Amino acid sequence: MGIVIKNALAVLPQGTEDVIKETSIYIEKDRITAIGDAPGGFVQDKVIDGRDKLVIPGLINCHTHSYMSFMRNVADDLSFMDWLFGSIDPIEQQMTDEDAYWSANLAIIEMMKSGTTCFNDMQMNIHQTTRAVKESGMRAVICRGLVGSGNDEAGQMRLRQAYEERDAAKDCDRLTFRLGPHAPYTCDEEFLKIVAAEARKEKMGIHTHLSESVSEVRQIQEKYGCTPIALAEKCGIFDVPAIVAHCAQATEEDIDILKRKKVSVVTNPASNMKLGNGFAPISKMLEKGVNVCLGTDSAASNNSLNMFHELNLLALIHKGTGKTPQCISAKEGFRIATINGARALGLEQEIGSIEIGKKADLAVLDLNVPSFTPRNNLLAGLAYSANGSEVDTVIIDGRVTMEGRRILTVDEALVYRKIQEIITRMELDKRQY
Amino acid sequence: MGIVIKNALAVLPQGTEDVIKETSIYIEKDRITAIGDAPGGFVQDKVIDGRDKLVIPGLINCHTHSYMSFMRNVADDLSFMDWLFGSIDPIEQQMTDEDAYWSANLAIIEMMKSGTTCFNDMQMNIHQTTRAVKESGMRAVICRGLVGSGNDEAGQMRLRQAYEERDAAKDCDRLTFRLGPHAPYTCDEEFLKIVAAEARKEKMGIHTHLSESVSEVRQIQEKYGCTPIALAEKCGIFDVPAIVAHCAQATEEDIDILKRKKVSVVTNPASNMKLGNGFAPISKMLEKGVNVCLGTDSAASNNSLNMFHELNLLALIHKGTGKTPQCISAKEGFRIATINGARALGLEQEIGSIEIGKKADLAVLDLNVPSFTPRNNLLAGLAYSANGSEVDTVIIDGRVTMEGRRILTVDEALVYRKIQEIITRMELDKRQY
Repeated sequence: MGIVIKNALAVLPQGTEDVIKETSIYIEKDRITAIGDAPGGFVQDKVIDGRDKLVIPGLINCHTHSYMSFMRNVADDLSFMDWLFGSIDPIEQQMTDEDAYWSANLAIIEMMKSGTTCFNDMQMNIHQTTRAVKESGMRAVICRGLVGSGNDEAGQMRLRQAYEERDAAKDCDRLTFRLGPHAPYTCDEEFLKIVAAEARKEKMGIHTHLSESVSEVRQIQEKYGCTPIALAEKCGIFDVPAIVAHCAQATEEDIDILKRKKVSVVTNPASNMKLGNGFAPISKMLEKGVNVCLGTDSAASNNSLNMFHELNLLALIHKGTGKTPQCISAKEGFRIATINGARALGLEQEIGSIEIGKKADLAVLDLNVPSFTPRNNLLAGLAYSANGSEVDTVIIDGRVTMEGRRILTVDEALVYRKIQEIITRMELDKRQY
Repeated sequence: MGIVIKNALAVLPQGTEDVIKETSIYIEKDRITAIGDAPGGFVQDKVIDGRDKLVIPGLINCHTHSYMSFMRNVADDLSFMDWLFGSIDPIEQQMTDEDAYWSANLAIIEMMKSGTTCFNDMQMNIHQTTRAVKESGMRAVICRGLVGSGNDEAGQMRLRQAYEERDAAKDCDRLTFRLGPHAPYTCDEEFLKIVAAEARKEKMGIHTHLSESVSEVRQIQEKYGCTPIALAEKCGIFDVPAIVAHCAQATEEDIDILKRKKVSVVTNPASNMKLGNGFAPISKMLEKGVNVCLGTDSAASNNSLNMFHELNLLALIHKGTGKTPQCISAKEGFRIATINGARALGLEQEIGSIEIGKKADLAVLDLNVPSFTPRNNLLAGLAYSANGSEVDTVIIDGRVTMEGRRILTVDEALVYRKIQEIITRMELDKRQY
């Protein structure tokens, strides 16, 4: 299959920055094989007219829980621990594997429609996100959320599930797997050490939550006499490539640990604000050279998986907290939402920018819209005026998965119906009207 | 013309809250004449199928500068005074009346497409916003921005222009007019007093900017020994119905003045963050009973006129700054974006809610989208997961101005082309690529 996007504006890397140039992009099988002129022997199966279009590398959502999408807008205006243990946990108890599957489909639809082509997922029902990813053509990094105490059977069972899911998905190279110790308030010190040792043995990366809420930090300080980030380091969690969500309460010393151990931090602005966890010290992390990437968290705490929304928040809120309009420029934000995410997931050779040899993971945006009018500084437009609805076409792994805003790989109407059935069954549908 | 929206979900006021109910809405000429059953003698000219749709009162953008839309994304990551006097002013010097007209059209397209049906505008080129409003079917409150010192000719000329524009637009009842003293750093004390006296004499409301940046507050403190809000009170600005943008730096005493003088405050979250002006003390204002409404400010400082974006920021950022997830619920935010705005503009008997006898200013949203799936708590969805692209149909003053996302009253493609011509002429089109 040879696809060419002809005469489009495209966001291309140039040194440590991105620039916008008019060009054509050639795709053969799953990869970009030329930018500018056609490669030798190119067989043109499909032409996408790039006039009045902007091509960007697909956005990378570095922290979400796709199985929670059916819980969108069910539990708002609650503090973090009340939200998690009072509202979300009881719903999760009723959830079936099929519920998780349809929910992952809803998440994938929402992400594709807003230009995301890869996501980093922590889930509970094995084989369900992988099934939805395989069918939809999405790219994902997946971990089974691990909760445990010491060497207990619950923790061991979840570890076995994580391996079972990984081994069953070897046929799909759009999928990679990590180990996912949930958080230090749901995994004790011994279990964290066990997971870290497993990750080293299996040569797997880790995906976890740390220092999300003030109450978490207080609880860990009382129990262990150190911060959650210091505890994780002590347990060996950072001795493999680690991607850590939130770090909203990170101290200066915590940031030094994250930098020293080459940990990638996923910031989740909407979720942190919505649950009253405040603002992560992202400017300081960037100053110290931590690799910062971006995530939406789940639809139960955001309540959107739209990475344009998240990029906009990232580019605005730190200007507000620091009263510094220069903090996190549009260009810097865009890299945080793309190549920094690829680096965090160990995929920087494969995705995160439009380059010859990389996977063809692209979003094509319509420029005939108010948010990109005038066409003067489209990188600013991506961060400040776009809302994701400009995305017209999505290509993942060289396959067109959305065209004219219609998803080609998933039955949207069926998914919306199945999601409504789930919340009707759980009697969550009449919560507020 | 009789329009019925049949069997839709609709946001309806119930006491001090909004609720969502399934119903039909009947429109005759410019007004809602029944909710539920058809009114006697109803002649049905048009039926809008409301299944899978949500009808909301049109959002009210209480502070913008529509003439600046052609400056979208031209001056980013700058401090307030550098942005205004270094970047924006030199562009304004080159601006013609026609530029202002096309820019107002762009603003109107963007607002309609995101469900806004009324805006409060401060502009510089008389007759241009009014012309675009008249042609497009929009509703607006307009003021000519006034700048002056003492009794100087510049200030007097602008006042005469304000009256000239008002008097020339008497035939259009979608338009009302205010006096618009720009700010205390561009109007001196004597001129502010003159404008306040004119407003009393002409029985006009006032629209102004106060306490936007730290540097403004410092400058006014040094010159007058009081805050900008205290100065405005002293000059009589609050002796007529006043709507004041920003108040980001308002003190406790300032908030007491605003409450005592029944001033409405327009908060502009994106603009305040983007220019490094921080976060307005909205929770305190709400606690003290100030009427708070919502605005986007201009596309030069936001860089979007999408009120869904602004509502989302409003509902999130104060949860973040106060670490209080209960602060500004979705329901409260929605009222701030609708009925509070109507109240601020003195139009609460006419617009801001779906009620029999009020003007038919409505937005109809598509619910078959990820952001409203599941359909469990649609008021939360409006604040937390919607992005404005769900708006399918817009009715203003009983006239369908957008249908199937196509604007019926303005030539979108022509406006985009004209805007591009403006920035090409001004050589702003190649700023960053």
